[in-house]
Amino acid sequence: MLAPPMLKIALDYAYAMRDGTPGGLDRVEFDRAQPSFEAALDAVLAKVTDGTLGFWDAPADAALGKAIADFAARVPAEVEDVLVLGIGGSSLGTRAIMNALAGPPELTYARPGRRIHLPDNSDPWVLAELLRLLAPGKTLALAVSKSGGTVETAAQVLVVREWLEKGLGAKWTERFAVVTDPNVGPLREMARAHDLAAFDVPSNIGGRFSVLTAVGLLPAAMAGLDVAGVLRGAASMAEQCRSRQLASNPAGVLAVVSTLQHRLHGRNIHVLMPYADSLRSLTAWFVQLWAESLGKRTDRAGRTVEVGPTPVPAIGATDQHAQMQLFMEGPRDKILTFIDVKERPVDLPIPKADGAFGYLGGHTLLGVLDAELRGTRLALARDGRPSMTVEIERVDAEHLGALFFLFEAATAIAGELYDINAFDQPGVEAGKRLAFGLLGRKGFEDARKEVEDAEACRPTSYRVAT
Amino acid sequence: MLAPPMLKIALDYAYAMRDGTPGGLDRVEFDRAQPSFEAALDAVLAKVTDGTLGFWDAPADAALGKAIADFAARVPAEVEDVLVLGIGGSSLGTRAIMNALAGPPELTYARPGRRIHLPDNSDPWVLAELLRLLAPGKTLALAVSKSGGTVETAAQVLVVREWLEKGLGAKWTERFAVVTDPNVGPLREMARAHDLAAFDVPSNIGGRFSVLTAVGLLPAAMAGLDVAGVLRGAASMAEQCRSRQLASNPAGVLAVVSTLQHRLHGRNIHVLMPYADSLRSLTAWFVQLWAESLGKRTDRAGRTVEVGPTPVPAIGATDQHAQMQLFMEGPRDKILTFIDVKERPVDLPIPKADGAFGYLGGHTLLGVLDAELRGTRLALARDGRPSMTVEIERVDAEHLGALFFLFEAATAIAGELYDINAFDQPGVEAGKRLAFGLLGRKGFEDARKEVEDAEACRPTSYRVAT
Repeated sequence: MLAPPMLKIALDYAYAMRDGTPGGLDRVEFDRAQPSFEAALDAVLAKVTDGTLGFWDAPADAALGKAIADFAARVPAEVEDVLVLGIGGSSLGTRAIMNALAGPPELTYARPGRRIHLPDNSDPWVLAELLRLLAPGKTLALAVSKSGGTVETAAQVLVVREWLEKGLGAKWTERFAVVTDPNVGPLREMARAHDLAAFDVPSNIGGRFSVLTAVGLLPAAMAGLDVAGVLRGAASMAEQCRSRQLASNPAGVLAVVSTLQHRLHGRNIHVLMPYADSLRSLTAWFVQLWAESLGKRTDRAGRTVEVGPTPVPAIGATDQHAQMQLFMEGPRDKILTFIDVKERPVDLPIPKADGAFGYLGGHTLLGVLDAELRGTRLALARDGRPSMTVEIERVDAEHLGALFFLFEAATAIAGELYDINAFDQPGVEAGKRLAFGLLGRKGFEDARKEVEDAEACRPTSYRVAT
Repeated sequence: MLAPPMLKIALDYAYAMRDGTPGGLDRVEFDRAQPSFEAALDAVLAKVTDGTLGFWDAPADAALGKAIADFAARVPAEVEDVLVLGIGGSSLGTRAIMNALAGPPELTYARPGRRIHLPDNSDPWVLAELLRLLAPGKTLALAVSKSGGTVETAAQVLVVREWLEKGLGAKWTERFAVVTDPNVGPLREMARAHDLAAFDVPSNIGGRFSVLTAVGLLPAAMAGLDVAGVLRGAASMAEQCRSRQLASNPAGVLAVVSTLQHRLHGRNIHVLMPYADSLRSLTAWFVQLWAESLGKRTDRAGRTVEVGPTPVPAIGATDQHAQMQLFMEGPRDKILTFIDVKERPVDLPIPKADGAFGYLGGHTLLGVLDAELRGTRLALARDGRPSMTVEIERVDAEHLGALFFLFEAATAIAGELYDINAFDQPGVEAGKRLAFGLLGRKGFEDARKEVEDAEACRPTSYRVAT
């Protein structure tokens, strides 16, 4: 039933190796990583097999794709706006899909078709403007939270539920769907109590690894995008990433080169720089994935290690005029991953001109973009500043799905190589606890006092004011 | 003539000091920086006085504000779209202004009023969609490039000029304005040849310091925003940043704390994290300013130093669900600067609820946001992870102008403290030269051969492909 494989994707890491750049890895260093890579991959796949790690097999879930498509097909045509209430892993993947497959975000309202809104902050600025703008009768709300209790999402759920109820009365329940834990949590309870449409975030898939579940795919399907293609591309990449030969496993190479560049050469900053405006939001999704998965205080044995590369988003060619000066001349603490797109949906020929612009005539904008990527990459490599390039044939559903999976698998493998748990996020609990205290949540009374005492005792002399 | 000062802005750096966090600076260390700060400020102001550094006095240029307002007032009402052709320093400031003062970018087409478009890439994806969408008769193009020769902008200028000419004939010249060097360069020549409206980027103001000139203010004025307010806020901040007492100079404190945290404590990653969606694009503007100004290979004496902190953009509370895990538990290589906004244009009350969401009833979304900032900041400080907070009364023209100037002045002072030239960008030349070679530009024939030879010799075995 699958279409013939249209996936053309390659990872070129010559400019991360000593043969390609003075800042690169020895081939020997790289080859020596084969056993640790194998162990890392085996550890990941063991968790896949025993069911504790769900993201790897998610793309092969044919029933999921069908359920999502069925639901999307039943959404009434009068629904023009989908209000996604979610934050972090519950919104960044959807943003990446919409940016890549629907068009530039700033042109949302200039396009035909259903709009997907992502007011993913407890700052009410965007949501308030949306509630003024949208009509309850033409809107469907989709609350996305794995635990079902995320505070920002919970607050928005209460606000939007009231807004829908005011507009639609008891029929608000027809316009409110949830994506959450299959069994427990406040959103699941709300869905049961009001018979809301509900989809699962499988218990063994964490938020930042959930784009290939209903979390990312349900909004995409409601926008009319090719969800099956996304899953197909991801499944194909999942197959390839099972290879136990490092040199034929793109996720393995991404993970090994990144972690070796960090450990052996101190490059603790990982830049993701697609030369494509349509992949801008993919970089934000990657930043969460890499930062939250690999930034950890303790290793698996409980020893304090405080590791984690810092991911940095960039866009080519735009950032040649912003961050490239630093990448080119600053500390040698970075490795870049470019994404190069071969076929594009559109190009603009540059008219002939006299004088200073004469050299541009006969070229196209894409020709300029291509020259810039090649020039920049080579200039970096010559100066000993390493990079890799992910080449994709085009930005479509298949290739986007493959990119999602590639980075997810690379993250899981890198977590093993760092010997940390890539699937938890204990570090945000301390701040959350203090915030709950301030909000008067039961059981957090001590936390409120802690913040108030600390703020009262904060030295006041370190302050400059107008 | 000026409105009464409405500016309320403060910089609190208690959580960057030992008294406020175990990861902070000694008061003695800080006080010891007074002489080097004074020398740095004096060096900056000497360049201001002798005319080599123009950004400091730009906000006081009353004639500029008037000229911009006059031009904007004469733009015909039928112009619904302004197509800004510029990249880097020629677009990031405008993006920041529009985001802060006009509204969420993704709602551009849902708002009344003139639209400002910023297709700031040689990727044709956005520009091509705009050219399909816009009508030449309702569009004004604004080309922005200090040198007038920026390749991405030049290519877009030729494309858009042809598009306008096809639509309007000889009258295209009435719908094409430029902001460029006062005397030289291809855009200036084009303006002269066709009698186009033209504004200056003063020769002594670099692209990334140019938001408070026509570069940022002309698009803002055409969008009907309060340009005079932006200048007023910036001018007020410029006054305050002349203080030679470190403890009363907010730009000095930002620069000194950041550079001391880097030098003494190895914190080479500087996170800017406003708790406000309207300041999202300000972080991208800051990233360019900080990265391109401070990332330098050589110091003033020509010694190789390869310095430069890496700026990282973040948004509160959203990034508590993305990057905060890394900031909280990862390497102690970061200092955060929060921006806290006191008054907001709108809030959303959270309806009462039973059960798990009960604690939220009676709060508002802003209450949640505030609790999150306070909780997160304190949790970081307790763990020895330093931060500063810029507090502003509200996001309006005055405060935005003040923020722009604050970060510009801090950057200039930090450049002196690093003993590098904060106002050049030599590092991007190497890549540009190679790209020009590929584009067949005259005089760059060698560069073409260099790229082709290098690519031909690139080892091909470091490649994984589907």
